[in-house]
Amino acid sequence: MSGRLASRLRALVGDDGVIDHPDALGVYDCDGYTIERGTPDLVVLPRVPEQVPPVLRLLWDEGIAFVPRGAGTGLSGGTLPVAAPVMICTSRLNRIESIDRQNRRVVAQAGVVNQWVSNAVRADGLLYAPDPSSQPACTIGGNVAENSGGPHTLKYGVTTNHVLGLELVLPDGEVVALGGTVEERAGYDLVGLVVGAEGTFGIVTRATLRLTRTPEAYRTLLAVFDSVDAASEAVSGIIATGIVPAALEMMDRLILGAVEAAYRIGLPTDAGAVLLVELDGPAIGLDGQMARVEAVCRTLGARELRLARDDAERAALWKARKRAFGAVGRLAPSYCTQDGVVPRTKVPDIVRAIARAAERHRLRIGNVFHAGDGNIHPIILFDERDPGETARVLAAGREILEACVALGGSVTGEHGIGVEKIAQMPLLFAPDDLLAMTTLRAVFDPAQRANPHKIFPDAKVCVETRAPRRQAAL
Amino acid sequence: MSGRLASRLRALVGDDGVIDHPDALGVYDCDGYTIERGTPDLVVLPRVPEQVPPVLRLLWDEGIAFVPRGAGTGLSGGTLPVAAPVMICTSRLNRIESIDRQNRRVVAQAGVVNQWVSNAVRADGLLYAPDPSSQPACTIGGNVAENSGGPHTLKYGVTTNHVLGLELVLPDGEVVALGGTVEERAGYDLVGLVVGAEGTFGIVTRATLRLTRTPEAYRTLLAVFDSVDAASEAVSGIIATGIVPAALEMMDRLILGAVEAAYRIGLPTDAGAVLLVELDGPAIGLDGQMARVEAVCRTLGARELRLARDDAERAALWKARKRAFGAVGRLAPSYCTQDGVVPRTKVPDIVRAIARAAERHRLRIGNVFHAGDGNIHPIILFDERDPGETARVLAAGREILEACVALGGSVTGEHGIGVEKIAQMPLLFAPDDLLAMTTLRAVFDPAQRANPHKIFPDAKVCVETRAPRRQAAL
Repeated sequence: MSGRLASRLRALVGDDGVIDHPDALGVYDCDGYTIERGTPDLVVLPRVPEQVPPVLRLLWDEGIAFVPRGAGTGLSGGTLPVAAPVMICTSRLNRIESIDRQNRRVVAQAGVVNQWVSNAVRADGLLYAPDPSSQPACTIGGNVAENSGGPHTLKYGVTTNHVLGLELVLPDGEVVALGGTVEERAGYDLVGLVVGAEGTFGIVTRATLRLTRTPEAYRTLLAVFDSVDAASEAVSGIIATGIVPAALEMMDRLILGAVEAAYRIGLPTDAGAVLLVELDGPAIGLDGQMARVEAVCRTLGARELRLARDDAERAALWKARKRAFGAVGRLAPSYCTQDGVVPRTKVPDIVRAIARAAERHRLRIGNVFHAGDGNIHPIILFDERDPGETARVLAAGREILEACVALGGSVTGEHGIGVEKIAQMPLLFAPDDLLAMTTLRAVFDPAQRANPHKIFPDAKVCVETRAPRRQAAL
Repeated sequence: MSGRLASRLRALVGDDGVIDHPDALGVYDCDGYTIERGTPDLVVLPRVPEQVPPVLRLLWDEGIAFVPRGAGTGLSGGTLPVAAPVMICTSRLNRIESIDRQNRRVVAQAGVVNQWVSNAVRADGLLYAPDPSSQPACTIGGNVAENSGGPHTLKYGVTTNHVLGLELVLPDGEVVALGGTVEERAGYDLVGLVVGAEGTFGIVTRATLRLTRTPEAYRTLLAVFDSVDAASEAVSGIIATGIVPAALEMMDRLILGAVEAAYRIGLPTDAGAVLLVELDGPAIGLDGQMARVEAVCRTLGARELRLARDDAERAALWKARKRAFGAVGRLAPSYCTQDGVVPRTKVPDIVRAIARAAERHRLRIGNVFHAGDGNIHPIILFDERDPGETARVLAAGREILEACVALGGSVTGEHGIGVEKIAQMPLLFAPDDLLAMTTLRAVFDPAQRANPHKIFPDAKVCVETRAPRRQAAL
């Protein structure tokens, strides 16, 4: 079927818009979640949003399922082709179509890279707030699918708080415009429903995004503690002041060692944990607020406080945080990043549960996470050449997610369910609730053609599971 | 049918839990939208959430539709019984069930009054942020149904930003738990879908709400301008500084006159418009930030600036704003409050469109609105004894909403669609989009038993339309 279908698709998107050579398809066999892999039969790369509806209509008529993909930086296997022979890659839909600086809105095609939006409006003193670590590569469409967060979620919220409208192409090729250009939405909040739906409703081709004014000033502090517990206490203490940090990140000793080995910026590798605290906003009063944060940290046992003295020092601290994943790659042949969330006061409990899982399964696990909102990212180190160890990684990951749920949290903070966490969904939802969600999906995608076999557990579908390779540095 | 049904319902909720005497039912013939009225056959007042499922199951088995109601302070007729003989009133479900101060969450039953939540946690330095003008009376369940906003929406967001979880009883009596106790949601965002659905998915019985720390300090400014245009320019100027006011409200001359006549707090009745600007947050730097706001106002033509010197002065300014609706009741026998939204830069345009509508229809219209987010609330004065004038009010309201849409806005900022704006929905949505929403509704409410004939235009259903009486002061 591929040959004939490829020809018909090429007629719609041009010769260079369809990839079907096996060598070229290998690139698309996984995203940032590398433990499971599978290659699509065909990859379609539309050049303009208007090419998407006819492509989907053709697939609809042929009864063929598809998997959407942005830049492939996702971390839960959302772009893994599972019984979906055709991949629709939105990466060439990369035009920012309009910028309304006065009302702080931008219309971006789905394949626009997250960072480009901020770049396009930086000179106007504006930015696009959601900042996942992958922001130099990940796309707006992917962010919408995963409802991506980032270190600045604590103050600025996640993707859904910054999307005003969406153009969605349904699996039968129909184009629907959801939301609009103002904050408030009339009728049901369909934009909110599609954001985070992991591509199971169709293909988002355009998004109207809310821009945020660039803060006038930043203050960025590295606070050093002897233990994760002490750092967690400081997190609660800072929040209790009423100051809302723009970011409040924690890194533990394993991560500090890895980052320092990679970047040599003078991090204290003998510390139990550090907090990266950033305040932003009007310059007036910011020093006073940071002095208060420092006082709280000191009272709660910080053994050292380092305030970034200039933009270069601030950039170095953020480099350490945002490249922590990449740095960990130096410690072991492979690693797997987990993503869970607990109520903020339960951070010490989940860190202990992670340590127990590490011990039980004889694994090294580092912790880097958004401490301010209880969103944890344990990084499990292992060796892909050891199949037994790979199995232990999966078991440890499951146990950590189960601990998150037991502590009143959830199995994903910001990376989505994808294929990775399908098995954990029943921990959170009763069968009836899952049924309600799949029924809801059927309103948009009655034949399950858009990213089938994602999010919701169903009859077992086989995909190739092999030892993971090293993840791209995010 | 009523007699037998009433007996069966009394068996479920107790003798005093069912109202069916015509004299007593008159109270329930409208909410804050008074132009259309209709009385239910029966009102059911459950005492505990657990009584709701059996009540709905009974109605389901009997094939009877119902309309949910909280305190009846809604402004778009969402609780008007339209082909729904039974009203389920949640006002007795008024227990705050648990408070988690450390993680800042509260579980409240649907009938808990908005203000009570803040009252319950005030001593702990916490509050529930959404603050509609009706907050001393309106309920959490009603806020969830309407996705209520308030003056502090600009900084703190609307109800959906503060609801973590919901217990929803579906029309067939099934109980579903949506969301949880952490910010992030796995799977589809069903909480976000139910918030703002105006009771068309079933009855919400419990909500897990996010609490916010009480700001350490406030600064509240009244800035006086010669015209609405000048005040609008100042709104843009303030936003451009990067300072996010907790509230940024505008009142025009007609409203100022009404409020001053009612409360005598020394408002400048000859001004074209005033802005009420409130900053809140850590005390450090707040004076400096307010000085900057004052400088912007002065540069952009403010003729007078009055900074509240203490809590009493601040309270007086807020009383003026929050009771503006009530004060307007002194100017005319009746009034009707509209609710629309435009991009913030279009505020001067919509104010001009409102003035044109007033002139064309020979009506007096005052403006009090959330200027910071472009959410307008024109108040149309009229005399209910004049049926011709009532018709002109409806026509003017329609024109104003059409102007909002033409300016890139929407027909509701925070009051919902209800029955009032059903006719305007096609201005915003194509028939296919409306069909998608009604199909979505069918997932939860396949037989349209929960608040039928709301939000979505359908075959004309007759309700009694009579001259409106004066609205309760909100």
